[in-house]
Formats: sequence, C-alpha cells, structure tokens
Amino acid sequence: MTSILFQMVNVPVALGSRSYSIKIGSGLLPQTGSFCAELNLVGKCAIVTDSAVGPLYGEVVAGSLRGAGFDPFIITVPAGESSKSLKSVEDCYNQLAAHRVERKSFIIALGGGVVGDLAGFVAATYLRGIPFVQVPTTLLAQVDSSVGGKVGVNLMAGKNLVGAFHQPQLVVCDLDTFGTLPQREFRAGLSEVIKYGIIHDRSLFSLLENEAAAVLERSPELLAKLVARSCEIKAEVVSRDETETSVRAILNFGHTIGHGLEAISGYGVYLHGEAIAIGQIAAARISALKTGLKENELKRIEAIFASYGLPTGVRLKEDKKEKLLAAMKLDKKVSSGVIKFVLAKSIGEVEYGQPVEEAWLSERMDSLIA
Amino acid sequence: MTSILFQMVNVPVALGSRSYSIKIGSGLLPQTGSFCAELNLVGKCAIVTDSAVGPLYGEVVAGSLRGAGFDPFIITVPAGESSKSLKSVEDCYNQLAAHRVERKSFIIALGGGVVGDLAGFVAATYLRGIPFVQVPTTLLAQVDSSVGGKVGVNLMAGKNLVGAFHQPQLVVCDLDTFGTLPQREFRAGLSEVIKYGIIHDRSLFSLLENEAAAVLERSPELLAKLVARSCEIKAEVVSRDETETSVRAILNFGHTIGHGLEAISGYGVYLHGEAIAIGQIAAARISALKTGLKENELKRIEAIFASYGLPTGVRLKEDKKEKLLAAMKLDKKVSSGVIKFVLAKSIGEVEYGQPVEEAWLSERMDSLIA
Repeated sequence: MTSILFQMVNVPVALGSRSYSIKIGSGLLPQTGSFCAELNLVGKCAIVTDSAVGPLYGEVVAGSLRGAGFDPFIITVPAGESSKSLKSVEDCYNQLAAHRVERKSFIIALGGGVVGDLAGFVAATYLRGIPFVQVPTTLLAQVDSSVGGKVGVNLMAGKNLVGAFHQPQLVVCDLDTFGTLPQREFRAGLSEVIKYGIIHDRSLFSLLENEAAAVLERSPELLAKLVARSCEIKAEVVSRDETETSVRAILNFGHTIGHGLEAISGYGVYLHGEAIAIGQIAAARISALKTGLKENELKRIEAIFASYGLPTGVRLKEDKKEKLLAAMKLDKKVSSGVIKFVLAKSIGEVEYGQPVEEAWLSERMDSLIA
Repeated sequence: MTSILFQMVNVPVALGSRSYSIKIGSGLLPQTGSFCAELNLVGKCAIVTDSAVGPLYGEVVAGSLRGAGFDPFIITVPAGESSKSLKSVEDCYNQLAAHRVERKSFIIALGGGVVGDLAGFVAATYLRGIPFVQVPTTLLAQVDSSVGGKVGVNLMAGKNLVGAFHQPQLVVCDLDTFGTLPQREFRAGLSEVIKYGIIHDRSLFSLLENEAAAVLERSPELLAKLVARSCEIKAEVVSRDETETSVRAILNFGHTIGHGLEAISGYGVYLHGEAIAIGQIAAARISALKTGLKENELKRIEAIFASYGLPTGVRLKEDKKEKLLAAMKLDKKVSSGVIKFVLAKSIGEVEYGQPVEEAWLSERMDSLIA
C-alpha cells in the first residue's frame, strides 16, 4: 500500500452542545496535539492504548501532544477483547488517580474498538465524567465504535452489559494506521461497512460488490471513501437518536445473533466483525421470511460476505444452540422477553423493533446460521 | 418518639425531562409500590439494600412492590462505607445479569447514602443506564445524597472519584425510618441540615440554634420541617445547575477538608457528617480570614456543631497534615492545582470557587482544624 496524502475530510456529528467532528485522512496522528489544542483542552492527558498499538503509535501521539503544550502519559492494557473488563477499568482508574488527573484533564483512546470502549467508559465515569478524544486505529473502530458515544465493557454474563453514553470531543481517523492492520482485522472491519450498505445505502452496497478486489488490496482512495461514507451514515443516525430510543437501533443489524455468538464462543474466538457477518446473514434470512426481502437480494447479501472472506455460517451442537438463544435473551435488545430484530425490506432499507418469537427462532436456528 | 401521620409533602425537582418529586412523610415505605406504579415503571425490580437496613425494611418494600404488580428481588451488600466500592458494583452487576434485568426494569436504593450512591451508580451504568428510585432511610441520605443525581463509589485513592450524574425517578423519604436510626448517625445527618442553613437559609440556621434539644429528641414535627426545607434548598440548587458547572458547588461547603479527613482516616472512622462538621468549621475560619465572615457568626457556627454533639476539631500529626493536603489536592474540587473552597460571607450566604493557596493552608492547618 502506498501512502498518499488526501485532503482531510471533516464529518460533523450534530448533537447540540455535544457536537463534534470526525477528521478523516492520511498523516493525522502527528497532528493530534494541535487538533486537541483547537478544542480548548488543557493540561494532563492520559493516552489509553493496548500492547499492540502502543508500541506502534503511542510515542507519535504523545510527542504531538507534548509539542502542543499538553502533559501526556500512557496507560497500556493487554491487546484483545479481554481488556474490555471491569478489571481493566479499575486499573485505568488507579493510574488516573496516581497521575492526579483532574476534571479538566482528558483521555485519548488510541487503538481499536476495545480500547475506545474501555477508555470511553473510564472517561464517562472518572470524576463523574472527563473529556475524551477517540483516535481509532482499526477499520472497525473508525467506521463504527469510535463514533456515537456508546462506551462500555463486558461482564462474564454478556457483552457490553455495562456502559454509558459519553460523546467524544473529537474523532481522528488516520487512514495510514491501516498499514499495520492484520488482514483478518481489516476484513472484520469491512463487515460493518457492508452493514451500512444494507441498512441505509444501496449504492454503497453496490460499490462494495463491484470493488471487492481493490478494497481488499486496500486502495487508499476507496478506503477514504468507505470510511467517510460509513461515518456520515453513523453520524446522521446518531444525530437523530443519540441514546437509541428509536432509529439508532438500525445500527444493530446483525448484532443480536452476532453478540450471542460472541458470548457463547468466549470473547476473542470471533472478531466482532466476523460474528456479525454470520449475524447479518441470519438477519437477512429472517428478513426473507418476515419482511419481504427478495430472494435475489438475500443471495447478494450472502455473496458479499463470502467475497470479502468473512465467515458466513457456523454449525452448533444442540446445547450450544440453546446457549445462543439464552445469550440473545440477555442482550439489551430484549423487551419483556420478546427478541427484537432489525430486519431488511430491501438492500438499503431496514426496520427496527421487529419482534421474533423465541420458538420460531429455535425451530429454524440451523438454517439461519448454517 | 411517637409516630404521627403527617400530611405527605411533595418537593419537586425541576430538571426538564428528568424532573421528579421527593415525597416526604410518615408511613410511606408501604406505599413504595403504588408510587412506582404511578411512574409507569414495570416488571422486574432490584432492591439494593445493606445488611443493616435490609432486615428492617426490605420485606415491607418488596411486599409493597409485589402488591403493585412488580417482580422484586433483593440485593444485600454489607453495611458501611466499604460497600461504596468497585467490588460491590461488580457484585450488583452480576446479580442483575443473573436475574435478567432488562432496560425497562428498575432499581430501588433502600438505605443510607452508601446504598444510594452505589445503587445509583449501578443504575447509571448497567445496560448504559436503567431507571432507579431512591428510598433513603437515614437523615443524611434524605436531606442530601438521595437528591440531585450524584452517584458513585470510592477508590483507595479518594472518595467519590468514580461516578456519574443519574437522576432518580422518585425519592421516597419515610420519616418513620428515623425510629431505627442510631443517634450517632442521626447527629451526623444534622451536619448537612446545618450546612443548608449556612449556605442558603439564615432562618433555618436560627431554628436549628433555638431548637437543638427538641431536634435531638427527634420531634416529628421539627424533623418533617427540616427534611422538607433541606430538600427544597437542594432541589432549587440542583435545578439551577445539574452537573455542577457553577452554583451547585455551594453544596460542597465544608466538604473539601471533610473529604480529605475521611480519606486519610480510612473510610469508616468518621461518619461523613462528622467529617464535614470539622470541614465546615475550618471553612468558616478560612471565611473569617478571606471573605469577611464576622467573628460572632464564626462563633455561632462553631457553637452549633458543638450543641449537636458533632466533632468540632481534630489534632493531626505532621505527616497526617501533609496527607490531608495531598488528599485535598486529589479531590474533584481542584483545578490546575489550586484548591477551590466554598467560603461564607455571612450565615446564609456563601461564594464558591474561592481559590486558597496550598502554602497558606499548610501554615494555618493546625488552627483551622483544631
């Protein structure tokens, strides 16, 4: 991959007094400090990162912050989903206290979705909330988890059961960080990009179908376009419904079964994007039976995940299938015991809050996730 | 103490879509269920209580909830400040998950300030926030911690370092619960009532001076008046500044040194109300030197805490004094290393955000807290 300097794109997230912008482009990490200075942030800054990303980019970001007059220090957690835990939250709190972080200090989340969700939750709750900036370094985090203010950690009982809504002050998406992203993680990130096509943008879906080879070769022009368009869609949805009382739920397409699979497999077996690839295909199959998704569009949805090398199904033993249903019922998208799905009417148009009966799901589970 | 049925008083807390009311009166615990039903709460309800309060009132509240069609269960934590910890938070999360608490379920905090702060923080963060109801059973909790939405827990490094703003849907203050309140806790609660007099209500202060004997004998009429007036003042201040960006800070009168004392003594040595009695006297002494509090009013402030049997000073060794200053600097009321105090101009009128230099404090610490 050749590194090309693109014009930086600014995607606004309109949320009244909590509005912020997403900066997308090449060569942005070394500018983190000056971006933060523009926000009137001051003083001490905790860079929360992980053992994989910290050695690559920690010093670039810390140096840029020092250059802009900040006083940064680095908190490193182990790489991987297991750091999205109360244990890691407590470790971060203790380090913030040891460094005497104050209410006007801030946190930078430097890493993938795990780091962003963890650091964001710490920022939401330390001193009852301090500012934070997202610097996502994976495709998944750039197109999804860094935008919208959902932060949190897992319990043994389920994913994201503990959390808050805490909007960042800024999101910095440096496309150059994809240069160090393993191919498996890169593919997993594309799973969320495909989701935006299914839930909201038919032409994005077509682009992804037509340009799979170039995307997988990480064409910088295409990636810039995909990240920007994904962020635009997420920003629009979040602006309309910040705390998910209504339309924001469409972002959960494929996530009910996806989260269930992650929970029963033990966190870390599936990457999030892989689990929701299977979940999106299952949701599309339910859609074909319940909300009139046409057969040829279902085939296109099945095909696109395959063409990006993402898993399209899984065989589960009986006891695992029961555990999957139980995990889905513990998910937050459950109300009074009825499981609510986001289902597609066509590619580019979905409806949230569609009730699906547990018995109906149980009977068809094999064919939905096979 | 004779139990008299008073007309129930409703104190509104005006916070837009997060407005709620504080119900104050006798015989309210058995009505908890019907109050909750009026709020359109439904389904499962976790009653968080402690090992001292649970055996006294847990079943009354649970029965009232069942009678109103709810499905309650009880989570009991050990009595005492040590339960305001991340460990207790995690225990609560795990029990909520085991009982499959959903977004539309709710939490009732039944107990004193520790239970309210803990249960409120759990409610603020479980599933990114679920509704909760405060049922405070101590004077301190009724007049202070149950109102205003500040929730949180302690770290080893300091008190309330972790938390959130999460308003309850309702506060139920049953004055009958004072019947089982130990005298030491009762006196400690009066420390916050005296605070309302100093910061906002000269006539409340005079009433407390004149009626000390009757108050300490727990005159039901007087207590009803004191709780209602305290809640009114707190509600007014919180309505003007929910997240403490300005005037809400006046509620911290006496708390900078008070929290510091609690931190260096080990939680549980001082009751909160005792520590802030010493803190308020120290703040009044600083006020006499810095903001023109008259000598006779300083004497009245010193005298009132003594007349309620509250501690008025403490002798600390040199190393403890240094630790106290260090703990004060870690407090949330610090900005860029300068310690900000709430100081009195006269009884009934205070000013927040008054900077006091560390060296100045250090020189006079003996005389301030003696």
